Amino acid sequence: MPTDLSKLCVHTITTKPWSLDVAVDKYAAAGVAGISVWQDAATSVGLTQARRILEASPLEVVSYVRGGFFPNHSREERARALDKNRQLIDEAATLGAPLLVLVCGAEPRQPLAESRRQIQEGIESLIDHATSNGVKLAIEPLHPMYADTRSAISTLGQANDIAEAIDHPQVGIAVDVYHLWWDDRLEQEIARCGKNDNLYAFHICDWKVPTSDMLLDRGLMGEGCIDVPLIRSWVEAAGFRGYNEVEIFSNDYWAMEQDDFLARITDAYRAHS
Amino acid sequence: MPTDLSKLCVHTITTKPWSLDVAVDKYAAAGVAGISVWQDAATSVGLTQARRILEASPLEVVSYVRGGFFPNHSREERARALDKNRQLIDEAATLGAPLLVLVCGAEPRQPLAESRRQIQEGIESLIDHATSNGVKLAIEPLHPMYADTRSAISTLGQANDIAEAIDHPQVGIAVDVYHLWWDDRLEQEIARCGKNDNLYAFHICDWKVPTSDMLLDRGLMGEGCIDVPLIRSWVEAAGFRGYNEVEIFSNDYWAMEQDDFLARITDAYRAHS
Repeated sequence: MPTDLSKLCVHTITTKPWSLDVAVDKYAAAGVAGISVWQDAATSVGLTQARRILEASPLEVVSYVRGGFFPNHSREERARALDKNRQLIDEAATLGAPLLVLVCGAEPRQPLAESRRQIQEGIESLIDHATSNGVKLAIEPLHPMYADTRSAISTLGQANDIAEAIDHPQVGIAVDVYHLWWDDRLEQEIARCGKNDNLYAFHICDWKVPTSDMLLDRGLMGEGCIDVPLIRSWVEAAGFRGYNEVEIFSNDYWAMEQDDFLARITDAYRAHS
Repeated sequence: MPTDLSKLCVHTITTKPWSLDVAVDKYAAAGVAGISVWQDAATSVGLTQARRILEASPLEVVSYVRGGFFPNHSREERARALDKNRQLIDEAATLGAPLLVLVCGAEPRQPLAESRRQIQEGIESLIDHATSNGVKLAIEPLHPMYADTRSAISTLGQANDIAEAIDHPQVGIAVDVYHLWWDDRLEQEIARCGKNDNLYAFHICDWKVPTSDMLLDRGLMGEGCIDVPLIRSWVEAAGFRGYNEVEIFSNDYWAMEQDDFLARITDAYRAHS
């Protein structure tokens, strides 16, 4: 288990009821070292103010969340998605976030292979803009239960395939235990990801047993069936030295007193990560 | 698309509100050719009576559903699961069902690799009993969203691995589009499954967009994002000549007038399978 909180990062959406300024103060006071900023947390206070809040805090900005959603039947909609991603890259740069996480999207009216082709094409057309802004892009493979609309990239193997096909230092992968824990090829695909210098981010939480909602019932580490320390050991064996990012969407936890929830996050991080 | 209903089989759970005798009459009247019997449908009328109902009908009994659930922390519980599976094999034989479908199970308190080992061990210890009763066993890989408790076998690749390791003509695989549609290796794994004579059953339905419930919101063919005709073409190219089994768990459809629902099943089968 981690001996301290120096590699703990929390996503703003994890404590969704808190505005950015409150989240920043609370995380820092709890000893959290990093923050990943969701777009709504930044835009709801305005980007300039969000930048000031982040600059004034000791927290390291780890990533900006989330771009992507490339596939669409319509060429115009795909172009619109690229514009939106360019804007997200600009926002990430404004906030000092070195990484934009990509939830790549899927279009249920077309074959997954076509969606994957559009994803690769979309990412490739963002590389120049990302490079000139100093923002890296991380493909996040999502659990297969999201393959209809959220991500045609469902395994780390697929993410590795695409990242290696793109083959650019601006483009890598975010590994999230929630999406990938079930895959018997996970250890070897993590090793492959690290070996190709594509392992850009590591997200943690847990899979509750039972899970009551396909999106909004994630658990704290130790609360479910994912062996987070084991997967973290694979990630670190693959050379990853970045943050362990707690990203939890949970109606139950959002309904809690968020100070208590943050205390549970740091406890769970020390005991079960 | 299918030109007639001669390969259409319906699972009794699909029309759960109907008792076995009603289901048998309605399916036959609608031109359905096969029936897969869920245990509760048989035991609620008694096995002897269920056998009479099935013998008196023109429907072919395609499979008995469902055994499995092998993994457990406790050796005693694993032995109990084997006893239960032997009883299910007996029941399948009584009903004239040539195949028992296995939902293999998972134990969230242990690594998936250990659950998979227990699954293989469990199936192997059933082979003699299955053989002497003339009942084949079909491993059904389940969607990764069920990897916590329902199945540590989440892909057709894993099912192929286990079936080939067991390597016995009594043991094969049930391919269900709902569980496997998202997998970019599906076509090649179906080909591998057929090549090794392990393709024993083919289940169809659709993945609704959005899906409101992780278990009980399956759709009719054509209603979601699964390309059923394409996957059926792969299954047939792999040599499969058996039934297309409609297996739908749906609170919405169970709440419908079941005669109307059955008409929608045969329509969807003709138009979107």
